[in-house]
Amino acid sequence: MPARTLKAVEWIDAGGGALRLLDQRLLPGREVWLHIHSAEAAAQAIREMVVRGAPAIGITAAYAMALAAMEAEKAGAPEATRRAQLERARELLAATRPTAVNLFWALDACKVQLSKDPAAAALLKLARRIHADDVAGNERIGELGLRHLQALGGAPFGVLTHCNAGALATGGLGTALAPLFLAHERGLPLHVYVDETRPRLQGARLTAWELEKAGVPHTLICDGAAASLMARGKIQLAITGADRIAANGDAANKIGTYSVAVNAAHHRLPFLVAAPASTFDLACPDGRAIPIEERAPAEVTDWGDERTCPPRTTALNPAFDVTPAALIRAILTDRGEISPVNAERVKAVIAAAGA
Amino acid sequence: MPARTLKAVEWIDAGGGALRLLDQRLLPGREVWLHIHSAEAAAQAIREMVVRGAPAIGITAAYAMALAAMEAEKAGAPEATRRAQLERARELLAATRPTAVNLFWALDACKVQLSKDPAAAALLKLARRIHADDVAGNERIGELGLRHLQALGGAPFGVLTHCNAGALATGGLGTALAPLFLAHERGLPLHVYVDETRPRLQGARLTAWELEKAGVPHTLICDGAAASLMARGKIQLAITGADRIAANGDAANKIGTYSVAVNAAHHRLPFLVAAPASTFDLACPDGRAIPIEERAPAEVTDWGDERTCPPRTTALNPAFDVTPAALIRAILTDRGEISPVNAERVKAVIAAAGA
Repeated sequence: MPARTLKAVEWIDAGGGALRLLDQRLLPGREVWLHIHSAEAAAQAIREMVVRGAPAIGITAAYAMALAAMEAEKAGAPEATRRAQLERARELLAATRPTAVNLFWALDACKVQLSKDPAAAALLKLARRIHADDVAGNERIGELGLRHLQALGGAPFGVLTHCNAGALATGGLGTALAPLFLAHERGLPLHVYVDETRPRLQGARLTAWELEKAGVPHTLICDGAAASLMARGKIQLAITGADRIAANGDAANKIGTYSVAVNAAHHRLPFLVAAPASTFDLACPDGRAIPIEERAPAEVTDWGDERTCPPRTTALNPAFDVTPAALIRAILTDRGEISPVNAERVKAVIAAAGA
Repeated sequence: MPARTLKAVEWIDAGGGALRLLDQRLLPGREVWLHIHSAEAAAQAIREMVVRGAPAIGITAAYAMALAAMEAEKAGAPEATRRAQLERARELLAATRPTAVNLFWALDACKVQLSKDPAAAALLKLARRIHADDVAGNERIGELGLRHLQALGGAPFGVLTHCNAGALATGGLGTALAPLFLAHERGLPLHVYVDETRPRLQGARLTAWELEKAGVPHTLICDGAAASLMARGKIQLAITGADRIAANGDAANKIGTYSVAVNAAHHRLPFLVAAPASTFDLACPDGRAIPIEERAPAEVTDWGDERTCPPRTTALNPAFDVTPAALIRAILTDRGEISPVNAERVKAVIAAAGA
């Protein structure tokens, strides 16, 4: 089962330790791994989307802090200097991408660790724990999602997903894709419809790549085709990941997700969100408080070196949108399922367990 | 006002007569006109989308029949032979693209003409009339749409459009874009949001090109971003063209249009369809009877020579979807406005006038 063995983010002990990242910008054409030896290089990898996906970004940031501590220790600086260097590394990493909260969650955990013990070994241990927890959480999310798929009955069914919330976006099996991998393993008659996910085509480039590797039957579609497939009865359920979930259950995810949710509601299909507890930001009362990253217009106006629109045309390129809780049938988390999706249930599942 | 002078489809009398088409596959990068001298070349141009847009395809087909008649007359064949040749040309043209009904409407008009007089001069006269009627119809549609825009009040407003239903898609000013050109001419504080319209990017390549030429303020977005712009209050109205409208008002248009309509309904925004009477197919009782063209998966899986998904991934590429009448606030036609959209009103406006 390739998704279980695929490691897009991996710590390598050999040679004094390094972070190994699968360069997702080159998929599906080429599989190239980059070895990252500094927090600066890790920050660049996050910014340039070598690694992406909210949980994977959080794990990468935690390992990056360990790398920063190792560098500082190697230089033999006194603890105060090392602490200052680590604080700078933390700020650098925090400035990479604004929406996915797992980044800030991981950096906050590192900060707590730093206040106790700034040793590289302690930070590496923390990063490994964050990573291992994500792997275990993915399995839990997968099992919760599987129940929803089993509830669809024995007839062949179609599931729509948007962007990539698989092994490439996490430490383990994925969030939104975890139930699909498990369903396929257990012989459920599943067909996945993959939104190509403009502008960066993470659906075409990454999700289709994961599904093909795992042998899961799937069909690629343009984002605009999903609604008509719902109308034609081809899709029974939609599921995506999330980059930040507010205290009331409003969920930010890749641009286009909100449209999937609106269309699912219109066709009375369940729309599920799958994300670990680290994706919740209880400091955001609702989706309006979630910062939305605006990316370069060139992602929309250009294809490689080719400009596809007129020279003076400008583009708006919000990387994420917010789906209100009311459109989400359930949020599947590593701490259990949130359904119905509202502030009370979020609190019961996430806050009560100590987010 | 460039949209009034832009002629994507034009009859040239010089040199014995030819059809001049702007090669829309090369826009916005290059403006190349092709001279078409035969029905075969016209059929190829329609199939390969040198010319596209339901009304423009209909006009092209009418001129193509005139070209076929001119060719047959030049060869000096007897009338029976010429009639057989014209029937073959008609069949060839009818087999190019299945969804846009204006093609069949124009070919039916040619057939009626043939039964009376198969002379090239008569067919050319008919084609010119079809073309001139479309130009006039566009103006009428523009005026009807303008009223909807004026009703939005004096504050700056945003209009979403999908695909291209402008001068490039018609004989004149366009259908969905006609009201936008008129609104801009008259100084209304209009901003157009242009869905890029995957997979062929007619929004980015064609609509943005027309709007830029006319100086209409506009912003390009990915199709998946439209819903979130509605939620953010940036869009007050959505308008598209149509390729075939059933007797009950269900409207087929470029894939992704249905999602625009569902999202507009969710945000309580008016969704308008603009199309001439020739786009109505009263033989289709509702949208289920409209044939939907499936185009090559490569339009989704490839970008030029680059494959953007894994080698064994397949894609589904329906070129159109159907928006049910219930989601359409009004259909603007050259014979008046259909609102509410239902079989009775369609009959009153279209059938009563003799479609």
